[in-house]
Amino acid sequence: MSTISLKKWLNLLARLLNHFFNISNVFYILLIFVPITIILDIFFSIDNTVLFALSVLALIPLAKLVGDTTEHLAEHYGNTGGSLINVTFSNTPEIILSIVAIQAGLFDLVKANIVGSILGQLLLVFGLSLIVGGLKFREQIFNKKNIVFHITLLLISITILSIPTILILGNLTVTEANIENQMESTGFMVMILSNSFAILLLSVYVLSLFFTFKTHKDLFVTSTNETDLMSKPNSNAEILITKKIDDPRIWSKKKAIGILAISMIGIAIISEILVSTVEETITNLNLGVLFVGAIIIGIVGNVPEKITSMMMARKGKLDLALGIAANSASQIALFVLPVIIVGAMIMGVSFPLIFTPFELITMFASIFLVYFITNGGRGNWFQGVILVGFFIAIALGFYFIK
Amino acid sequence: MSTISLKKWLNLLARLLNHFFNISNVFYILLIFVPITIILDIFFSIDNTVLFALSVLALIPLAKLVGDTTEHLAEHYGNTGGSLINVTFSNTPEIILSIVAIQAGLFDLVKANIVGSILGQLLLVFGLSLIVGGLKFREQIFNKKNIVFHITLLLISITILSIPTILILGNLTVTEANIENQMESTGFMVMILSNSFAILLLSVYVLSLFFTFKTHKDLFVTSTNETDLMSKPNSNAEILITKKIDDPRIWSKKKAIGILAISMIGIAIISEILVSTVEETITNLNLGVLFVGAIIIGIVGNVPEKITSMMMARKGKLDLALGIAANSASQIALFVLPVIIVGAMIMGVSFPLIFTPFELITMFASIFLVYFITNGGRGNWFQGVILVGFFIAIALGFYFIK
Amino acid sequence: MSTISLKKWLNLLARLLNHFFNISNVFYILLIFVPITIILDIFFSIDNTVLFALSVLALIPLAKLVGDTTEHLAEHYGNTGGSLINVTFSNTPEIILSIVAIQAGLFDLVKANIVGSILGQLLLVFGLSLIVGGLKFREQIFNKKNIVFHITLLLISITILSIPTILILGNLTVTEANIENQMESTGFMVMILSNSFAILLLSVYVLSLFFTFKTHKDLFVTSTNETDLMSKPNSNAEILITKKIDDPRIWSKKKAIGILAISMIGIAIISEILVSTVEETITNLNLGVLFVGAIIIGIVGNVPEKITSMMMARKGKLDLALGIAANSASQIALFVLPVIIVGAMIMGVSFPLIFTPFELITMFASIFLVYFITNGGRGNWFQGVILVGFFIAIALGFYFIK
Repeated sequence: MSTISLKKWLNLLARLLNHFFNISNVFYILLIFVPITIILDIFFSIDNTVLFALSVLALIPLAKLVGDTTEHLAEHYGNTGGSLINVTFSNTPEIILSIVAIQAGLFDLVKANIVGSILGQLLLVFGLSLIVGGLKFREQIFNKKNIVFHITLLLISITILSIPTILILGNLTVTEANIENQMESTGFMVMILSNSFAILLLSVYVLSLFFTFKTHKDLFVTSTNETDLMSKPNSNAEILITKKIDDPRIWSKKKAIGILAISMIGIAIISEILVSTVEETITNLNLGVLFVGAIIIGIVGNVPEKITSMMMARKGKLDLALGIAANSASQIALFVLPVIIVGAMIMGVSFPLIFTPFELITMFASIFLVYFITNGGRGNWFQGVILVGFFIAIALGFYFIK
Repeated sequence: MSTISLKKWLNLLARLLNHFFNISNVFYILLIFVPITIILDIFFSIDNTVLFALSVLALIPLAKLVGDTTEHLAEHYGNTGGSLINVTFSNTPEIILSIVAIQAGLFDLVKANIVGSILGQLLLVFGLSLIVGGLKFREQIFNKKNIVFHITLLLISITILSIPTILILGNLTVTEANIENQMESTGFMVMILSNSFAILLLSVYVLSLFFTFKTHKDLFVTSTNETDLMSKPNSNAEILITKKIDDPRIWSKKKAIGILAISMIGIAIISEILVSTVEETITNLNLGVLFVGAIIIGIVGNVPEKITSMMMARKGKLDLALGIAANSASQIALFVLPVIIVGAMIMGVSFPLIFTPFELITMFASIFLVYFITNGGRGNWFQGVILVGFFIAIALGFYFIK
Repeated sequence: MSTISLKKWLNLLARLLNHFFNISNVFYILLIFVPITIILDIFFSIDNTVLFALSVLALIPLAKLVGDTTEHLAEHYGNTGGSLINVTFSNTPEIILSIVAIQAGLFDLVKANIVGSILGQLLLVFGLSLIVGGLKFREQIFNKKNIVFHITLLLISITILSIPTILILGNLTVTEANIENQMESTGFMVMILSNSFAILLLSVYVLSLFFTFKTHKDLFVTSTNETDLMSKPNSNAEILITKKIDDPRIWSKKKAIGILAISMIGIAIISEILVSTVEETITNLNLGVLFVGAIIIGIVGNVPEKITSMMMARKGKLDLALGIAANSASQIALFVLPVIIVGAMIMGVSFPLIFTPFELITMFASIFLVYFITNGGRGNWFQGVILVGFFIAIALGFYFIK
């Protein structure tokens, strides 16, 4: 066997190993938990806490599958269409889980999950990307305009979504009297406001798409290193995140839609199991609904996404990592939550948009912290420490709300 | 008839039509409601809700008349003196209405009106100017320093003015006990604080005039396009807004003072009617005091001003439009409200400076939103959508406070 | 006697007078109050209010002595080591006083003192430096990055430290029921959170030292005019603030440590007297604990430091003055308070980290105000007026919390 032939074989082996143990694909191994969870749920009377843990683990690869498949599908619809598909479908796992939870009446869990997802993007993804990137690069420059754009969208969304809570807390504090009685009439008010605000935010969302994909497109194309990435894709992970024009590995439209449909059905089934076991788990582990919703489901569910971000930051693409995180955070508030509210409205369920003060204050504080930190346009590891430190403190706070 | 003569006639006709149907002067047609409202009030026993609506309509041209007359008067007192007159007298309509309402004990209405005026400037004028300007120009550059200056003044004013409310809410929440009893002693505290803060803010206001018109004059002259506007006035509307040196159409000092006095008397009379009918209107229409004060009186009263702003933005003078809006907003908090408090003090009326949490939070949120949006120094239509969207949400919130 | 000899004598006299009546050293005259206070406390049964006033006066020169001695000591340990010593020991007066007060159970006083110290740095030192500097220089440029760095640290610290308060206030408002019962379990929660947050913040603090003195050292060296100051020290005051390499007037290591130890013992003794007299003083003067802690002890104690800052600003070194103030403010929240909490933990005292809403809101408002003001990177007198005006309003507010 010649040296060249040996090299070839080693190379092939390396690529094979790389493919399966690629940090990005390794999560697909967790797909094994999907059938395990379903089978255990149907045929065995297993402890609900274990079933809950398994269903959380099973959701991780399913959410990743939806994300990756959406990328493949987006390739077939040009730049703008593709981005729209990407943006719209990438949040389906969260929406499906929330709708299932709302049907089961777990309103606090849904709201906590939304809050946890936003905080996860703003503090954990931002923070870890800054730390991981900052340990390799002394300073990385990023486009602060793009981040401020999404942070502003987030600020307006959160402020609007907090209006019912402010009105109710404000009234309680001022009048004090006859809360029971008041609750009846305020319940009506909260529903009207929730639904109006959902429609208002969805309108702003549609206009924001028009702004970012049509009238002021260039602002956002230049702001990220996406074009750079496209021209020289270095790793599998990047390929899956960025646009892959004319790549033979892109799935056909049929295949993509099929896998998307299957993974969504999987998410719906697993969500049912998760929702049916969460209450007993909360009691068993003596945890609060907010902690389980915000920290366990909200954070664990997006682990692959977070790791991809960190990998990008480590490769000097901090701008891209932060841009995606800011975009995701603003989308959850501006699109996902309003869609859930409208979904509840259609299902005829009263989903009251009342948050705890702690949820609201931590979101506002996170927005301002990210604003202060990104306003210089340069990232270093210590900024990441601040954000992650804040996240740890918030997680501790959630732990004690019961 | 020769072609030239025809052209001349058509031209004259166009100028005549332009003068009367100029969007800026068209509001003077509403002056007809001044005598109508007064006559109906004195000689006919008309429904109070109708009378209220008429008096709101009658206030619009009167407020505009005060504004325009002040501009004419200012011309006679040089640059600094003129600006001072402008700044001082342009707010008289609001002050007169407030004093009349305070005499009638309608404290919540006065505070809501102040809040509505500030939100109207910060969200509606800013937002509509950005939308209208942004539909014509892709991006307009403006001097963010000027805006940040006024936003900072607004932030400190609102924070100081919210101290009594914070103290009372904070105490209530902590002690919970015996609110009635506490209210007696806190009433005393609130009055001392209100009056002290009014004097403190007026001192800061005087120093801010010294800063903007004396020691750091140049910062503000260069920040707006005023000099540009002066050299080439294009339309009637602009002429009325900007300085008109050596313009033959400027009213004489005597005429200006006379019209100013008459319009102020008119405002006082109409305010009396408005105030005497507002409570029945609120009951009849099942509206809240805050909604009527903040949205109906606070917003409708400044319609002409808002339209002029939008027209400026449409002509590429976004910087001027935003500068005037930011200036107006900070003046209401730093000058108008303190003057009203001092006025109440002189009249011997206890005007407690307690806001609802919703009023305070919406003002703070608006300040931060405007700060985030203007910090880039470039305006586009979507920023306007965000601000107007936020205003709609706030208006809905006010609607439900009863 | 020759003219030269006369000149020499006059010169010597001038230097002597300069040394003793230097505004910076003049505070050492107050050292006389240290023995007076101790003697009066032990041998005479003097009115406690007088003794309290004397002990506050006695603390002023002792705190200054610790600060100056630390500077001398720091000289012996190179740049990084010296800065670390400086940073660590300059806060000992505050820590000693707080530990003594905690042993006496005066928790509210300790917290108010911390809040007052932070507000004093952020509003008074910043504000007075801007006014004093601005009256001489039309505009002074400063490095806003350095300030934003510390303001961000302050924001995260204050937010984390406010989490227990938010959780308790939030819960009270939502459930309303059975506060007594709830307080028992929340007491436990508050202690765990306080201690965890103290350790978390101290970790962030250590990492911040690593960031500022090791990995991103250059960001902070270039940001202040320190290098400039070192090359041409003009006055005694500056020498005491800045690094003095090879200066014969620097005390030996032994002398510095000795004086440091003595002054710390003095602070401990005087703190005991202050703490033992403060409650009677509060009752006698009908003041609130918060006012005494935040305004009297928190502000008066740092007078020399504040005057040095103003002198720097007056000499055109506004950047240095603001940098030190921002640094001090962030250190109090990130280092001093956590150390106090850990100290209480070690002493086995439950020190509940619950602030009043007013304390928290004023700190947040101050952070945003300083951020808005410093974001332009240029200082003028009116910015100082805003900050000092805000401080006056806050002090009035504190006066009414009883």
